[in-house]
Amino acid sequence: MAAPDALIAAFIPASAIVGILFAVFLWKRVAAIQMTGGRVLSSQNGREYLLEEEQRGGEEEIVAKAADIQKSISEGASSFLATEYYYLGIFMVIMSIVICSLLSIVTPEEGRTSSDELRNGIFSTVAFALGGATSILSGYLGMQIATYANARTAVEARKGIAPAFMCAFRSGAVMGFLLSGFGLLNLFLAITIFAKFYGDDWKGLFEAITGYGLGGSSIALFGRVGGGIYTKAADVGADLVGKVEKDIPEDDPRNPAVIADNVGDNVGDIAGMGADLFGSFAESTCAALVISAVSSLGKEHDYAGMMFPLLISATGIFVCLITTFLATDLKPAKVIAEIEHTLKMQLIISTLIMTPVALGVALWSLPPEFTLSVPSSTPDKPFDEKVVKSWYMFVCISTGLWGGLLVGLQTEYFTSNRYKPVQDVADACRTGAATDIIFGLALGYKSCIIPTIVIGVAIYVGTSLAGMFGIACCALGMLSTLATGLAIDAYGPISDNAGGIAEMAGMGEDIRERTDALDAAGNTTAAIGKGFAIGSAALVSLALFGAYITRAKIDMIHSSILDPRVFAGLLLGAMLPYWFSAMTMKSVGKAALAMVHEVRRQFNTIAGLMEGTARPDYKRCVAISTQAAISEMIAPGALVMLTPVVVGALFGTQCLAGVLAGSLVSGVQLAVSMSNTGGAWDNAKKYIEAGATEHARELGGKGSDCHKAAVIGDTVGDPLKDTSGPSLNILIKLMAVESLVFAPFFYNCAHGQGLIFSFFGIA
Amino acid sequence: MAAPDALIAAFIPASAIVGILFAVFLWKRVAAIQMTGGRVLSSQNGREYLLEEEQRGGEEEIVAKAADIQKSISEGASSFLATEYYYLGIFMVIMSIVICSLLSIVTPEEGRTSSDELRNGIFSTVAFALGGATSILSGYLGMQIATYANARTAVEARKGIAPAFMCAFRSGAVMGFLLSGFGLLNLFLAITIFAKFYGDDWKGLFEAITGYGLGGSSIALFGRVGGGIYTKAADVGADLVGKVEKDIPEDDPRNPAVIADNVGDNVGDIAGMGADLFGSFAESTCAALVISAVSSLGKEHDYAGMMFPLLISATGIFVCLITTFLATDLKPAKVIAEIEHTLKMQLIISTLIMTPVALGVALWSLPPEFTLSVPSSTPDKPFDEKVVKSWYMFVCISTGLWGGLLVGLQTEYFTSNRYKPVQDVADACRTGAATDIIFGLALGYKSCIIPTIVIGVAIYVGTSLAGMFGIACCALGMLSTLATGLAIDAYGPISDNAGGIAEMAGMGEDIRERTDALDAAGNTTAAIGKGFAIGSAALVSLALFGAYITRAKIDMIHSSILDPRVFAGLLLGAMLPYWFSAMTMKSVGKAALAMVHEVRRQFNTIAGLMEGTARPDYKRCVAISTQAAISEMIAPGALVMLTPVVVGALFGTQCLAGVLAGSLVSGVQLAVSMSNTGGAWDNAKKYIEAGATEHARELGGKGSDCHKAAVIGDTVGDPLKDTSGPSLNILIKLMAVESLVFAPFFYNCAHGQGLIFSFFGIA
Repeated sequence: MAAPDALIAAFIPASAIVGILFAVFLWKRVAAIQMTGGRVLSSQNGREYLLEEEQRGGEEEIVAKAADIQKSISEGASSFLATEYYYLGIFMVIMSIVICSLLSIVTPEEGRTSSDELRNGIFSTVAFALGGATSILSGYLGMQIATYANARTAVEARKGIAPAFMCAFRSGAVMGFLLSGFGLLNLFLAITIFAKFYGDDWKGLFEAITGYGLGGSSIALFGRVGGGIYTKAADVGADLVGKVEKDIPEDDPRNPAVIADNVGDNVGDIAGMGADLFGSFAESTCAALVISAVSSLGKEHDYAGMMFPLLISATGIFVCLITTFLATDLKPAKVIAEIEHTLKMQLIISTLIMTPVALGVALWSLPPEFTLSVPSSTPDKPFDEKVVKSWYMFVCISTGLWGGLLVGLQTEYFTSNRYKPVQDVADACRTGAATDIIFGLALGYKSCIIPTIVIGVAIYVGTSLAGMFGIACCALGMLSTLATGLAIDAYGPISDNAGGIAEMAGMGEDIRERTDALDAAGNTTAAIGKGFAIGSAALVSLALFGAYITRAKIDMIHSSILDPRVFAGLLLGAMLPYWFSAMTMKSVGKAALAMVHEVRRQFNTIAGLMEGTARPDYKRCVAISTQAAISEMIAPGALVMLTPVVVGALFGTQCLAGVLAGSLVSGVQLAVSMSNTGGAWDNAKKYIEAGATEHARELGGKGSDCHKAAVIGDTVGDPLKDTSGPSLNILIKLMAVESLVFAPFFYNCAHGQGLIFSFFGIA
Repeated sequence: MAAPDALIAAFIPASAIVGILFAVFLWKRVAAIQMTGGRVLSSQNGREYLLEEEQRGGEEEIVAKAADIQKSISEGASSFLATEYYYLGIFMVIMSIVICSLLSIVTPEEGRTSSDELRNGIFSTVAFALGGATSILSGYLGMQIATYANARTAVEARKGIAPAFMCAFRSGAVMGFLLSGFGLLNLFLAITIFAKFYGDDWKGLFEAITGYGLGGSSIALFGRVGGGIYTKAADVGADLVGKVEKDIPEDDPRNPAVIADNVGDNVGDIAGMGADLFGSFAESTCAALVISAVSSLGKEHDYAGMMFPLLISATGIFVCLITTFLATDLKPAKVIAEIEHTLKMQLIISTLIMTPVALGVALWSLPPEFTLSVPSSTPDKPFDEKVVKSWYMFVCISTGLWGGLLVGLQTEYFTSNRYKPVQDVADACRTGAATDIIFGLALGYKSCIIPTIVIGVAIYVGTSLAGMFGIACCALGMLSTLATGLAIDAYGPISDNAGGIAEMAGMGEDIRERTDALDAAGNTTAAIGKGFAIGSAALVSLALFGAYITRAKIDMIHSSILDPRVFAGLLLGAMLPYWFSAMTMKSVGKAALAMVHEVRRQFNTIAGLMEGTARPDYKRCVAISTQAAISEMIAPGALVMLTPVVVGALFGTQCLAGVLAGSLVSGVQLAVSMSNTGGAWDNAKKYIEAGATEHARELGGKGSDCHKAAVIGDTVGDPLKDTSGPSLNILIKLMAVESLVFAPFFYNCAHGQGLIFSFFGIA
């Protein structure tokens, strides 16, 4: 089959634009929900029979109240993002200067001139800025949509489960498609424009493009860390005073931290998570591109073959588009029991459809055979030529795709309260918080087994078939259904917020029950999303690691674990996730304590607050969370950003290789166990609260000793699952992409031996 | 300097015997304390002025009661060990058959005959049995001494801090010297006897000797895991009902699990820990021997040079002997504030004295220069000859020695409640158990930084100076003051038991205060001991790993982290500590629940129990702990024992190399963080209870909300610090030594490619 270049050059941006337009279309449907009163717009899609009769009074008032709360949340989120982006702007400028100078000053490699290096420095910086800007845009838009949709979901919940679910899911999908579309479009434009300046030097072109991944992940770091600290400072602070001391329900409008808590869901789980997955997408594509640039595809200027990674993402957008229609418009969730199933079906269906599509793309765009340079295992030459067949790449994509699904399903098993693991954790609450926590930690540890095996198999299959290109394609495969993954992931915090708004607007017990059910499913999908994020992060960073090794000119011998620099690096790298987590957890603890004091202060000083006659000072709490998040993200951010530079420059490229591998293998375990432990505690608590089974009712329900124990577990889990765990993805990815971008500079420091070793004459 | 062989052959066993005799001497001093009544034997050592006047009535009765309790504890411990050793006996027989057959059937290597392999199989098995028997003997004797000394410490506490401290410390030292002496003596005898059969084949001789390390560590596995589950099932079970539900103090004789709890301290922290450190000693010596056997020392049959590792341990016994006198007999702890300092000084003084001794031994026994085979970094040959100077080895020993001290001191900083970290954790209890736990976890994560850097530096220094021999010597250096380390480590559980006996025998508040103070210092030294254990375990297993690589014929290229088998192995290996911890923690949880039910049952069915008029059925609780420990140790034991065999045989030696390295780098972090988190929670609780400072009193003391939160943290920490954490040491060591012993067999499975890969034709 022949793939005309012009067709490909048109197809990629076209599919990105289709994705964006589809997002706009979904947004329109969400926007059709009126927030001005009780008038229900007549719907054209034939599901009107689901709507329940409206029987409540004070209709106008409740909706107005919901609109008011939404406005507060939206303002709080915007103000945090504005502050965050201000500091990120400064960071981006400094970082741009660093990138541009470090890459421009290096002594040119053989066959390259100083102006080549200067060009590399400049274009890497431009790509970096573009990646960062795209990430910021995606996070911002996602947050806008989420804060726009939360109140509408609450309002729709008055009509029934189906409309509310539809609203939340569509809004999530808006984010998914916008982000996939913009990410792909901007990357494609960058490649196309850069190509004008690089001409035939495709290797240089795609090396500069890696800056795009670095930009995306740098923003994601601060999004995840800052957002994570924000959301959990507010959440833990609100719970510790509200639930524990004052015995008022979650999301009670009397709690001064309640708006900050709801803002947190948006800045952490929406903007942060979006930036994280955008970073994974950008990095895996960049890794695949930079590796294939030195393959026969790049050397022979096979445009169609080179564009294979982008084509996978482009076709993925269409697959997700169909999936969205299939599973929501054709067979939406109508009762509570169907919600989790419907969301899970999204994953399964998109995986099923994507499989033959990936085969088609591989056969269509790739030549039947091409050759890759892989590190040699024979001692006399640095590289071997490896012949790769086009269907090998289909196998790699599928491995990632189905591996991702498997990780998702096992995550569901370990974190949904419909299965035994979480029920066991809930049962352990009978003997108090301590056993709850012991069982929860054990559950998280155990949940590492399957993801590790999946990633291990992907590594083996990918590398055996196509070296590091194979691994990058495994990661691409896992991310090919990104729009769907993001949609079900963003669905969670939107439902969570909807519940909060329903409570605050006083919408009544039955509405709150519906939003709670939406939220419980959201907890599980959030855990699934985190499983995806860490799985893809591991593969992405391994691919980036492979690209780094090549660019830093490290051969098989010098990456042996018998080399003391590599092994010491491995050990230090394995420690970094712990150091990083210590920082982020302590930050959440500190920020939460500050929040507790403020909330207590307001309860003590504002007369009538507890009685509901006076209004708390929400803004003060929002400001505290914002302040804490901004100031606390500096130290962990610096740890991640500086480690590769310090290790690479001072201790050499080999030691850095060890650090990257060590942080990867250790970080994956810690991230998976933290996410799942936290998710399990949260759902164990919800299991006791909901009392849906005989066993659950035995545990005593809300307010019982069991429930109190479960609340303690949930609170411990908050920073684990929403701050430290997800931030670890970024740690491992960002260090890898940063090492890749700066590899020429490190190589320039005493030929990669490191300035310290070189100074002491140990070569 | 010349070192005559005969002198060395006499010196090593002589120093071992001196160690054993010194232990017997100390035991005599402890045994001089009468348990038959209030008559205080007149002491000859001039410290009689310390004894307080005896003013209490019911003297005879109290001592008789203490003797009675001691008998129950001793019986419980003996009965558990008897049951455990029965199953271990069966395991040893099966394992011996496996070792003997797998090693005997392999196709002989080039230059070796079938009868060489058969001899290797038989002698490896004999060494295995001897190592196992020594470990069992050490654990058993240690336990006997500890249960003998606990009541005597309690009785001495009536006279004052100094005699009680002296009794506990001397008893700990008995264990330290017995274990060091027997370990060294048996190893030396094995080498001497084996040499008769091996003649000039020193390589074969020392390869067979590695079985000694495997035997020691196999027993340690079950000692740590079984003992750890036993002790924590009893402890958590006793606390959950006693402290939380019935509000009776710790160690109250009305609690049916109280004897099981005290038994647990002996079987877990004494027998298990002794077996663990004996295993480290045996393995590091074996690793050093097997590596130096293929150096010029072994090839030229330089007996003095080969015995260098044993000489370090032999002189270490003398150094520890002097230290014991210096710090306890010349300057013993007389007041509570001095206890921790005195124990810490033991570590510092032994390190100081050992340093010049190590220099002397290195210069005396080693030739000024010798050559080692190290994996080559030039592509054309597998091995390089590396010239090593004798003082290099002094540097390696010192690095380990001082590194161990540094790890010990930083552990003290993070787990003693005299410093800020633990006080911060205590402070976090103000906002409840959740923040206590968050801060405690963060503390544990943070405490990984220094030990990792220390081990990293040791790896770099050791390898740069003398390859894997250097690393083995770093480990030997860390363990050279083993007798002192063990003494201060065993001191902890003895004091803990003494406190229990004082409480149960009704010795009064002031006596209990003294034993509490002894115990608090014991908590910190226990954490220090665990820091030592994990630090040395990391170095030991790295040295074993290096020896494995050589024996499995893996070169630098095939141990590259770019190799997919190695990297997939790394990832899987990094997961194993999590899987293992999930098992052990869940086991503790399950066993504790069983204990809770039994304790509740007794409180509900035995009339007069709560009032103290009826006697609980202690034996039933002892039986439950025994049963749980024995049955629950099978699964984690199988995971550790089978992983190397399965991976090595099915997936090949390269994948196994990755698994070993991965479990090492990840396990170290998990073990350190678990130990320190648990120690910090325990001491945060003690800090609140003791109320020694203004800040501590602010937190409210016993029974306050802060204290309740701290108790929850302490309970969570119990399985972390006493079961899962310490067991991880064994995981990483045992997998490495097992791989080393079975390396010829794995190499025999499709030339190390693994049967699965070989079956599918992927070579």
